[in-house]
Amino acid sequence: AVALARCASTIPTKLDAIMPITADFPARHIGPRKHDVRSMLKQMGFMSLDELTNAAVPDDIKLNRDLQIDQPLSEFELIKRIQSIADKNKIWRSYIGMGYYNTCIPHTILRNMFENPGWTTQYTPYQPEIAQGRLESLLNYQTMVTDLTGLEVANASLLDEGTAAAEALGLCFRVNKRRRFLLSDKLHPQTISCVETRAGPFGIKIEIVDVNNVDFSGKDIGGIIFQYPDTEGSIHDFTDVIKRAADNGTLTICATDLMALTILKPPGEFGVDIALGTSQRFGVPLGYGGPHAGFFATKNKYVRHMPGRMIGVTKDVDNHECFRLALQTREQHIRRDKATSNICTAQALLANISAMYAVYHGPQGLEDMARKIHNGTLLLAKGLSESGNVIENPMFFDTLKISPRLDQGEIKIRAQEININLRYFPDGCVGVSLDETVCQKDVKDLLWVFQCPKTIQQVAEGVTSPMYPEGSILSSNEFQRTSPYLTHPVFNTHHSETDMVRYMKRLENKDVSLVHSMIPLGSCTMKLNSTTEMMPCSFPGFTNLHPFAPPDQAYGYRHLFEELEQDLCEITGYDHISFQPNSGAQGEYAGLMAIMAYLESKGETKRNVCLIPLSAHGTNPASAQMAGMKVVPIKTAADGTVDMDDIRAKVVVHKEDLACLMITYPSTNGVFESTVSEICNLVHESGGQVYLDGANMNAQVGLCRPGDYGSDVSHLNLHKTFCIPHGGGGPGMGPIGVKAHLAPFLPSHPVISTGSATYMGKNAKPFGVVSAAPYGSAAILPISWAYIKMMGAKGLKRATQVAILNANYMSLRLSGHFKTLHKGKGNLVAHEFIIDCRDFKKTAGVEAVDIAKRLMDYGFHAPTMSWPVTGALMIEPTESEDKAELDRYCDALIHIRKEISDIETGRIDKLNNPVKRSPHTLKQIFSSNWDRPYTREEAAFPAPFVRSDSKLWPSVGRIDDSYGDKNLVCTCPPMEEYLSPYIVN
Amino acid sequence: AVALARCASTIPTKLDAIMPITADFPARHIGPRKHDVRSMLKQMGFMSLDELTNAAVPDDIKLNRDLQIDQPLSEFELIKRIQSIADKNKIWRSYIGMGYYNTCIPHTILRNMFENPGWTTQYTPYQPEIAQGRLESLLNYQTMVTDLTGLEVANASLLDEGTAAAEALGLCFRVNKRRRFLLSDKLHPQTISCVETRAGPFGIKIEIVDVNNVDFSGKDIGGIIFQYPDTEGSIHDFTDVIKRAADNGTLTICATDLMALTILKPPGEFGVDIALGTSQRFGVPLGYGGPHAGFFATKNKYVRHMPGRMIGVTKDVDNHECFRLALQTREQHIRRDKATSNICTAQALLANISAMYAVYHGPQGLEDMARKIHNGTLLLAKGLSESGNVIENPMFFDTLKISPRLDQGEIKIRAQEININLRYFPDGCVGVSLDETVCQKDVKDLLWVFQCPKTIQQVAEGVTSPMYPEGSILSSNEFQRTSPYLTHPVFNTHHSETDMVRYMKRLENKDVSLVHSMIPLGSCTMKLNSTTEMMPCSFPGFTNLHPFAPPDQAYGYRHLFEELEQDLCEITGYDHISFQPNSGAQGEYAGLMAIMAYLESKGETKRNVCLIPLSAHGTNPASAQMAGMKVVPIKTAADGTVDMDDIRAKVVVHKEDLACLMITYPSTNGVFESTVSEICNLVHESGGQVYLDGANMNAQVGLCRPGDYGSDVSHLNLHKTFCIPHGGGGPGMGPIGVKAHLAPFLPSHPVISTGSATYMGKNAKPFGVVSAAPYGSAAILPISWAYIKMMGAKGLKRATQVAILNANYMSLRLSGHFKTLHKGKGNLVAHEFIIDCRDFKKTAGVEAVDIAKRLMDYGFHAPTMSWPVTGALMIEPTESEDKAELDRYCDALIHIRKEISDIETGRIDKLNNPVKRSPHTLKQIFSSNWDRPYTREEAAFPAPFVRSDSKLWPSVGRIDDSYGDKNLVCTCPPMEEYLSPYIVN
Ligand SMILES: Cc1ncc(COP(=O)(O)O)c(C=O)c1O
Ligand SMILES: Cc1ncc(COP(=O)(O)O)c(C=O)c1O
Ligand SMILES: O=C([O-])O
Repeated sequence: AVALARCASTIPTKLDAIMPITADFPARHIGPRKHDVRSMLKQMGFMSLDELTNAAVPDDIKLNRDLQIDQPLSEFELIKRIQSIADKNKIWRSYIGMGYYNTCIPHTILRNMFENPGWTTQYTPYQPEIAQGRLESLLNYQTMVTDLTGLEVANASLLDEGTAAAEALGLCFRVNKRRRFLLSDKLHPQTISCVETRAGPFGIKIEIVDVNNVDFSGKDIGGIIFQYPDTEGSIHDFTDVIKRAADNGTLTICATDLMALTILKPPGEFGVDIALGTSQRFGVPLGYGGPHAGFFATKNKYVRHMPGRMIGVTKDVDNHECFRLALQTREQHIRRDKATSNICTAQALLANISAMYAVYHGPQGLEDMARKIHNGTLLLAKGLSESGNVIENPMFFDTLKISPRLDQGEIKIRAQEININLRYFPDGCVGVSLDETVCQKDVKDLLWVFQCPKTIQQVAEGVTSPMYPEGSILSSNEFQRTSPYLTHPVFNTHHSETDMVRYMKRLENKDVSLVHSMIPLGSCTMKLNSTTEMMPCSFPGFTNLHPFAPPDQAYGYRHLFEELEQDLCEITGYDHISFQPNSGAQGEYAGLMAIMAYLESKGETKRNVCLIPLSAHGTNPASAQMAGMKVVPIKTAADGTVDMDDIRAKVVVHKEDLACLMITYPSTNGVFESTVSEICNLVHESGGQVYLDGANMNAQVGLCRPGDYGSDVSHLNLHKTFCIPHGGGGPGMGPIGVKAHLAPFLPSHPVISTGSATYMGKNAKPFGVVSAAPYGSAAILPISWAYIKMMGAKGLKRATQVAILNANYMSLRLSGHFKTLHKGKGNLVAHEFIIDCRDFKKTAGVEAVDIAKRLMDYGFHAPTMSWPVTGALMIEPTESEDKAELDRYCDALIHIRKEISDIETGRIDKLNNPVKRSPHTLKQIFSSNWDRPYTREEAAFPAPFVRSDSKLWPSVGRIDDSYGDKNLVCTCPPMEEYLSPYIVN
Repeated sequence: AVALARCASTIPTKLDAIMPITADFPARHIGPRKHDVRSMLKQMGFMSLDELTNAAVPDDIKLNRDLQIDQPLSEFELIKRIQSIADKNKIWRSYIGMGYYNTCIPHTILRNMFENPGWTTQYTPYQPEIAQGRLESLLNYQTMVTDLTGLEVANASLLDEGTAAAEALGLCFRVNKRRRFLLSDKLHPQTISCVETRAGPFGIKIEIVDVNNVDFSGKDIGGIIFQYPDTEGSIHDFTDVIKRAADNGTLTICATDLMALTILKPPGEFGVDIALGTSQRFGVPLGYGGPHAGFFATKNKYVRHMPGRMIGVTKDVDNHECFRLALQTREQHIRRDKATSNICTAQALLANISAMYAVYHGPQGLEDMARKIHNGTLLLAKGLSESGNVIENPMFFDTLKISPRLDQGEIKIRAQEININLRYFPDGCVGVSLDETVCQKDVKDLLWVFQCPKTIQQVAEGVTSPMYPEGSILSSNEFQRTSPYLTHPVFNTHHSETDMVRYMKRLENKDVSLVHSMIPLGSCTMKLNSTTEMMPCSFPGFTNLHPFAPPDQAYGYRHLFEELEQDLCEITGYDHISFQPNSGAQGEYAGLMAIMAYLESKGETKRNVCLIPLSAHGTNPASAQMAGMKVVPIKTAADGTVDMDDIRAKVVVHKEDLACLMITYPSTNGVFESTVSEICNLVHESGGQVYLDGANMNAQVGLCRPGDYGSDVSHLNLHKTFCIPHGGGGPGMGPIGVKAHLAPFLPSHPVISTGSATYMGKNAKPFGVVSAAPYGSAAILPISWAYIKMMGAKGLKRATQVAILNANYMSLRLSGHFKTLHKGKGNLVAHEFIIDCRDFKKTAGVEAVDIAKRLMDYGFHAPTMSWPVTGALMIEPTESEDKAELDRYCDALIHIRKEISDIETGRIDKLNNPVKRSPHTLKQIFSSNWDRPYTREEAAFPAPFVRSDSKLWPSVGRIDDSYGDKNLVCTCPPMEEYLSPYIVN
């Protein structure tokens, strides 16, 4: 366990009175000013924040002491500290490859997208009318993936290459229910591990095979994954394997590389069913392993089985073409019913960066780049083989497996002398992977490492045809790419920086993000993502490190992980943290897998039941399913809490086979249930473990700790409570905290030792691997680290208290107009609350979706819709919104309620009214034939704070989801169609 | 002279064919793609860019060889190089003060404003309808300055404190025409130097005095400048001096410090006429001296004499309150007729940053900060005096002059040991200035440096009242501030980061900048300001260096200056560069002063005539006037060129007294005059020098060099040709290039040795000092350096050629619709051209301003209006705009021309038409009572490319300038008025 006793807070001295040590950040992070807090408390009848939260939080779970967290740093001290940590990472020239490559993020994309809150602080585009910008960009991503892979449909990103492969396994299982599955022995090791881990609970048997030597005739093999080019750099012709697999009902899956595919025949043309990989090398920095977008493409016929989110084209109410998340029902279907996937948060921001990278370079730029990489590799191969080294893979793109003339150890010494990392195979071979940053000097350096006598110039002089050097895939009929790609105008227009900036800005300005107004999505915690927290994410010391670099080059990251683990343990009451899961859902899966491994280690192999309240987030049952558990639902009582009778009954029924309870706290209904520790006790008494979904930590930090009141494991959505921005649907991080008894089972990694392996050695019992990278999306951890360091114990607690205050204040202000569905102790809600809108359907024909759309006319993003209660809205304001903004949002809702009343009383028409016809676009408003029974002003400027000089307009009218799902188009439509909806007049 | 022979470009080898060395940047910087260039050339009947520019540029000035510039770096190599240069600067803890202080730019302002092209790439807000965002922010700046100084009006920034003081001298001279002027001996040395230099040519005698000992009774003293707190930190009561001065018609001017004024009685309350200073320490990094905003405030009665730009409140056509540049006629008046000021480009971006800093901290935050600084200083003073040091200034805010117990040399050694810079006075005293970054450890370190035996805690324990320590200005009736400040809501609202980000975004989104569309302002060269060029401006190695740090801590900057000087000399054909002038106008002044000094050194004291073509930019005659020259105008011939007969006549007439010719090339009429070298010869033959205004270098780089064809000196607006963004009206840099004979006269600096002093020692003959900082706005020089390094010789030349191509292409496309007023050789224009709109006044009642406003409806910024030809428009597209954007702009103009035809033919009404009633606001459009004879669509969506989902709307209707000038309000209006115009309905 991590030692906790630190920094006993000192008594302020006279010196401190004269020169106060200022922690400036909490007052920047928290929205309401002190006087606002006082007046809000007063309206609720409380004297202090402590009084409020004392009333809200059950006594038996209260922490009742300050968190032991370092004194807070100012924003400027923070940057100095984190810079010194980043400086501990050593950035060597890396040729390791294995799915991670150096890349140049175009600086204009770095600054105007990655460092721009207009692009990073949006939510998943569930409200397409105010999300057309990022939807267009994600559609570009899908088009890029389908074009390059030669397949028909792609999704808008998965978490990484390893989990994309695991998702492919799931798809095959859904399609053909077979329980044998083959992996090529030439896959990246982390891909193999991720798939193996995922296969276990499904009861699928994994076999590692030589792809050229497989017998499919038993018709019992679900699928086979091979890699092209493979992990050692080889390029093989899979035509025959694919044919034989297909003949026997086996799905073929190709892990591949987008850069290679710009000059290499795409897998789709070989006939594979699925292509997947990572788009990291398209402009996303290494970041010690992530975040990067995984991609996934398949044939049309499998589209309804495809995991993850997918953007599609549809029409709006005015028949204009537009974009939205397609087939969302499918998504839920996959999740809930016999789920084989639990993906929710993905990597939208990184997918957008990669898409913009392709937009900026265009097909010709990408091809030029690939040729440079390939030519460099050819030159290196020529130089190496001319001096007594053997290239093990005669056909390659950018990667060589070299059987060296010198001893491997000698090579390593020489490489280290000039700060170069290579891949060292156990068989004595050496791997080298080149990338877009390669220049002549690099090849020269590599020739020196292998002690080649010839200069690079001499080697080059021996090349006969510089454009098509001998041995090149460009001179190969078999492998040379002939099909065009990225032919859509969007990839052939924005090639000057001026134009690129304008394109990115045009898209950005269509979307509501936190730079415009509050986004009170219940359960999503859309709080401030401060600049100071974000700055370290662009420090070269963090961005440019290869995840498989030797650990002694990664002291900075190790230091960061240790400090963050210590702080998160203190905050949660857990003993250990694993940073491998790179989303909340991944965390759930990892936590449940750890529970299963723990039970197994105790011989409790019969225990496999997972109790889950009906109000749980969809990922909970999906994760349980995927961890091999049987989901048994628990009823919700009328007041929104867990039905205690039901749970009491169920733990008795399942005394023998209870594995765990999965519970969200405060509940997804927005209340602090007073029975939570009792519930945990019940489960423990029946031999089960408690998984507490940490999505709602924002109501708990500093007030109570899951580890104290009975939970054994939780994931922490760092992209909620701990300030990682949502990025329009990712990145996120879902590390899990565990009590000591679960720690030996935390995930490991096949390349870099992680988790219990680092301190238990052989006694570690990791259940497996859940992410391709050892520490998930390591590069965004500085955000959460910085948040904690700048808030300090007092600031963190105050943030929680104000989050609870804000929610209760809004609930109170709305009380005459909307019913807050559930309240807890002291008649209070937690940090979020549900307003009931179900009756309006009957009284006025108005549904939750109508309110959501009408809010757009006020410049607001809707609350969470129809979850956890169908037809209701869940509002989570967070502590970062100030009173004025809360009031504006309440004003908007109250005004909409008045419009609903007007429908109810017949004052306005049931269909032709501003609520049902919302959102109102500019195009509708300026039309000369305005023929609605309400005015343009009422439609578009329904409140004084909606100003004509700052209004963000929905860029399309209400979207027709079902049209799009029926007429599925998930790539950029052709030119003519593409332009049509934009032309006004 | 700088050695030029470098990097003879090598012949490409086979290796280069296999692995090309890619210079990626030129193709990003230049807008049109290769195929566009071909098709544009074809339309004009040229085969190549060389053919085009050969035809345009006179043979006798052509360079006819490649520039000798290093091989271009890629964007990524560039960042590595400049980082290594930045790393050569050593950042010590600086307590030097003297007008430059450490400050914390709030990171959210850094990222969302300083690093955001939406804020940096705008032009001076001459088109207020699409500039309300930055106008509001600049008004905040003015309000902040008037509030803190206690004066009535302020302008929207000057270049720095030194020149602000020089401008004050000018104001006094305008007001009372007296030729004696007093400076306190306790002003910063650079302030004294700047004023002395400026006084010379006006024939004003400067006397350095002890302020408490002055006799004003002769009624011949124009003004007196004193400092509060003074350069040594002392605070004096100036009541008596001010009274005596006022009684005798002498204006009183107080150089002061905004931070001190948050707790110190403001100079306005003492009755001073003018207060000035720098707002650097309000959030603008040191940057080795700049850019920072100078401020200037005065009494209402002097407002029409105030230099620089001023924002005022007015109304638009719909009677809504709005902002615009006030009293612009005054500005021109000051410039042209007996100018005492030539200021044009100022420091808008930096003023905005300082204003936002005040908005973010608010009055309480600023006061807290000032108290912390002051208390730290008190504590230090107490510790020092208790251990045998003498504090020379008993009343202080943040600065101590210490007569130390130890020897000054010993103090210096101790300070250096822990990387601390102090101020070392010649009299053996030591100066220490604290700033907002001060913390307990700093005071501890300083006590150590002075070898104080007590600990800081012990010193603190001796303080009786921590809030009002003894000796504090806070306990002084005389000096304690009692008047409120920053009471306007804008300074009391946006204190959380969430709210601050939204406020900045709301303002940003009102303004047209280069992130939206082209801004083809003739003579302003609004080209790409690329991210890679901008990135180094936030490197701590550049931002955190004090300008008076010992030179051995500034090797990085020195290296940068040397390389940039070498490249700019090669580009211009000059021998030396001075980087001191921080605007084009400053460069003009410096260049002309160098000429005068040179002539004087030759005994040619009678020479004082400056010939200037009538078409010259207003700053030219103003600068000449200020350099003590007599301006003699030269006629412009009908074809827009300099009238050769007139110039021939004038050089003869002025054979005896000709000092110089000031000429812009290519001419402000947009043509390459073929007679330029002949003109230069004529001037030289008559004993004069040639000043060539370098504003139009964008038409020359790589094609011809002023230094080759006869010019002796030029300024280079780095904020035009060399990619420094305009920042909404600054910063800029106007370094001057000179031939060797003028080099000894280049400006020097009283604190840091610059210019010829560095290599000529005692033989240097600097004419004086033009900026407060030795190297002007040093911190933005990396931008221009990076541009040159990434473009290389070929890229720079191609940029020039495409700039000329783009202008000629537009002129051709517009030719059936608008007459291009002037063309040069080969019937071609240079990089800009003038379209004649003067006839429309008669034929349709349409003026240039109407076209400018109508262009806003297309989302475009107007070209330069009515300069150099009244009633015409000057268009400069630059090389960064691609063909599609040029076409859109031409389409807009052609469409407007058609509307004018419709007025001419009577098809539409003369007044009630879309041109005269432009621009159209959203508010007008959505109004239910649209009663105009054209449609809403025609008004707001006049072309297919104006899209409802991306249109940037003018935020107010056409502005009433004269109303505002008649009812002058130059600070934030009170709450009620302030809100009114924003409320829709
Ligand atoms: C209660 C709850 N649990 C789990 C998750 C899943 O987290 P993620 O989206 O990071 O996979 C969410 C996400 O919104 C959630 O609200
Ligand atoms: C021809 C010309 N000369 C001089 C100047 C003055 O330059 P600055 O604004 O940098 O003082 C300008 C500025 O627009 C100009 O166009
Ligand atoms: O992202 C969610 O589905 O909550």
